[in-house]
Amino acid sequence: MSIEAKFRKLGTDNAPGQEVRQSASGLEALMRGEPLEGRPVDFSHGDVDAHEPTPGAFDLFSAGVAAGAVQAYTEYRGDMGIRELLAPRLAAFTGAPVDARDGLIITPGTQGALFLAVAATVARGDKVAIVQPDYFANRKLVEFFEGEMVPVQLDHVSADETRAGLDLTGLEDAFRAGAKVFLFSNPNNPAGVVYSAEEIGQIAALASRYGATVIADQLYSRLRYAGASYTHLRAQAIDAENVVTIMGPSKTESLSGYRLGVAFGSTAIIARMEKLQAIVSLRAAGYSQAVLRGWFDEAPGWMEDRIAQHQAIRDDLLRVLRGCEGVFARTPQAGSYLFPRLPKLALTPSDFVKALRLQAGVVVTPGTEFSPHTADSVRLNFSQDHTAAVAAAERMVALVERYRA
Amino acid sequence: MSIEAKFRKLGTDNAPGQEVRQSASGLEALMRGEPLEGRPVDFSHGDVDAHEPTPGAFDLFSAGVAAGAVQAYTEYRGDMGIRELLAPRLAAFTGAPVDARDGLIITPGTQGALFLAVAATVARGDKVAIVQPDYFANRKLVEFFEGEMVPVQLDHVSADETRAGLDLTGLEDAFRAGAKVFLFSNPNNPAGVVYSAEEIGQIAALASRYGATVIADQLYSRLRYAGASYTHLRAQAIDAENVVTIMGPSKTESLSGYRLGVAFGSTAIIARMEKLQAIVSLRAAGYSQAVLRGWFDEAPGWMEDRIAQHQAIRDDLLRVLRGCEGVFARTPQAGSYLFPRLPKLALTPSDFVKALRLQAGVVVTPGTEFSPHTADSVRLNFSQDHTAAVAAAERMVALVERYRA
Repeated sequence: MSIEAKFRKLGTDNAPGQEVRQSASGLEALMRGEPLEGRPVDFSHGDVDAHEPTPGAFDLFSAGVAAGAVQAYTEYRGDMGIRELLAPRLAAFTGAPVDARDGLIITPGTQGALFLAVAATVARGDKVAIVQPDYFANRKLVEFFEGEMVPVQLDHVSADETRAGLDLTGLEDAFRAGAKVFLFSNPNNPAGVVYSAEEIGQIAALASRYGATVIADQLYSRLRYAGASYTHLRAQAIDAENVVTIMGPSKTESLSGYRLGVAFGSTAIIARMEKLQAIVSLRAAGYSQAVLRGWFDEAPGWMEDRIAQHQAIRDDLLRVLRGCEGVFARTPQAGSYLFPRLPKLALTPSDFVKALRLQAGVVVTPGTEFSPHTADSVRLNFSQDHTAAVAAAERMVALVERYRA
Repeated sequence: MSIEAKFRKLGTDNAPGQEVRQSASGLEALMRGEPLEGRPVDFSHGDVDAHEPTPGAFDLFSAGVAAGAVQAYTEYRGDMGIRELLAPRLAAFTGAPVDARDGLIITPGTQGALFLAVAATVARGDKVAIVQPDYFANRKLVEFFEGEMVPVQLDHVSADETRAGLDLTGLEDAFRAGAKVFLFSNPNNPAGVVYSAEEIGQIAALASRYGATVIADQLYSRLRYAGASYTHLRAQAIDAENVVTIMGPSKTESLSGYRLGVAFGSTAIIARMEKLQAIVSLRAAGYSQAVLRGWFDEAPGWMEDRIAQHQAIRDDLLRVLRGCEGVFARTPQAGSYLFPRLPKLALTPSDFVKALRLQAGVVVTPGTEFSPHTADSVRLNFSQDHTAAVAAAERMVALVERYRA
């Protein structure tokens, strides 16, 4: 495959934050009515001004800078002292042991962890089971490493609210067809649904039966709403060497600006990930790593407050969206993503997303980024200023009415 | 190729900073004499405690954190305002225009830039000309992307002091054999030699004649000693779309802990690099990017002082090394690397490097990391505390005497 062909698949024009590089030529002719006034809201990612970084994070960073060389130059897999701090906390959170020395790597964001984990498990031609819809980079990672994607459907729309809606038969078919790796996010990004204990148990059983490796992206697994129960795959009956779990403080904790993530589990895969990290970026920024000292050690009540704030925004947005005929929006059980399905519109989904930005100052991520079957949905990261988010959702609904087919 | 085979080539056991993961079993039987006392020195990388980060860097970082979301979430290629600040500075430094919008990307360290640049230019099976010796990751990057390495020799030992010693006939042979990409560091890492104007002119002419892309790693190009003249490849007669130049403030400026680098030049290649960065690590840590505002804008005299300090260390180390019979050490013209060739020893080069660490508290990087033909050399990064570095070099020389064959 030529280098041009390889990179053509890596389109980022519709990726969150890249809208500034789009052109909107041709759309003017299709747009109806006047712009809607209101404070712009970028739902493509969370607003760390509205939900600020964990208190104390900057002080930990400063202490890292003051520590000097020892913090600037760590092992490629990250500072051992920090790994020793984190391992028991991650073990307590996920319900299974974490080996600080050999089973944990600190990465530049969870994106860095995902990249390394896929690179360390997927060789050219390998089949990889990927959920549809799921985080858009999953597909791109498999394509970049020339793996073969085997889609498995997640029917979060029809599933009852106790389960995410994974097609377990489809997953078994994928394994039977030779998929060696299963990569999925839990809670699901974009739908915000959490896999049930039974679904996770089945994933573990199927992966074990077929000897597959599972990469579980649990980035949002700390931000869980009232009533949600969460099952950690790595604590189930599955060979620990066949599971890599990915987390990070970018989201719930709003520490994105420090670019930190972790992967933990399989020592063989973590070892490969470190070897690759050595040529990808050497290590997560040394001083940033120091911020992880405060992770899972937030002040009492801080996490509960953050969750309560997000739950309140979620509920108000759901009320606005559900007030619009033809919109379907399932209640997210965790994380800060909403993935409403819109009614049929007179604009293509892609043009509607652009019109929304140009006419209403509302940036959302098109559903096609997550699955070819969800073009009629858009993703909203509702980790925003509460009032501004509700007003933006109202403008979105107004535009749905304006462009209703 | 299986994933295990692919990663076996990415050995990092001897990589700088990874010594903590080595075992030294078996070596005891071969070691002679008692340990040599003295303050340990890790020559595998610079000591940012001895040569501190540029004054003001931390304040710029703090301002980035205070700026909030706008600094935490930048375009994947980095904050546009910062790119607009840097482009004219990089253009002035290198003597050729830099396009802030389309021709410049901010990366997680220069390692990040190298990884993306190689990924964006080398497809499976492509031939890539690589200098021997050169930065150890170059070879690994080509291997990781399943390119075919075509070695080109750099005879810094025999070349007269006015040139680096590149085998230009070998480079033409590589291009004639189909090499599409030439990747090299200038000043050379590990030898510290600078390519002459004539060598750079020839590289430009040959690359143009054969339509090859050149990736120039100029990480250390600001740290130039008295009498060194430096020629920027990108300012020569060569299609600007066929050149990517890589720099960063990690080294001379001691900002490694922030993990920052830049690549600039070819807009097509930079565009591919950004697409890949989107799935590798999204972006260089947002807050860290703010530190680049001070780059190429240091206080008057600061850079001159830093260079003078390093030149003084260089000269003292050369004196110590050249006092040992059989050691050859060419004078580095730029950067902070020394690459002395040692006389024949009773230990293998690999065991000598281990003995040096265990018996003298001196960490160096084995010459085999840079070329299969330089096993008898070791690399020292002399950006260290002056007194400690000289004492460590004296211990090294003492061990050379102890183990002389």
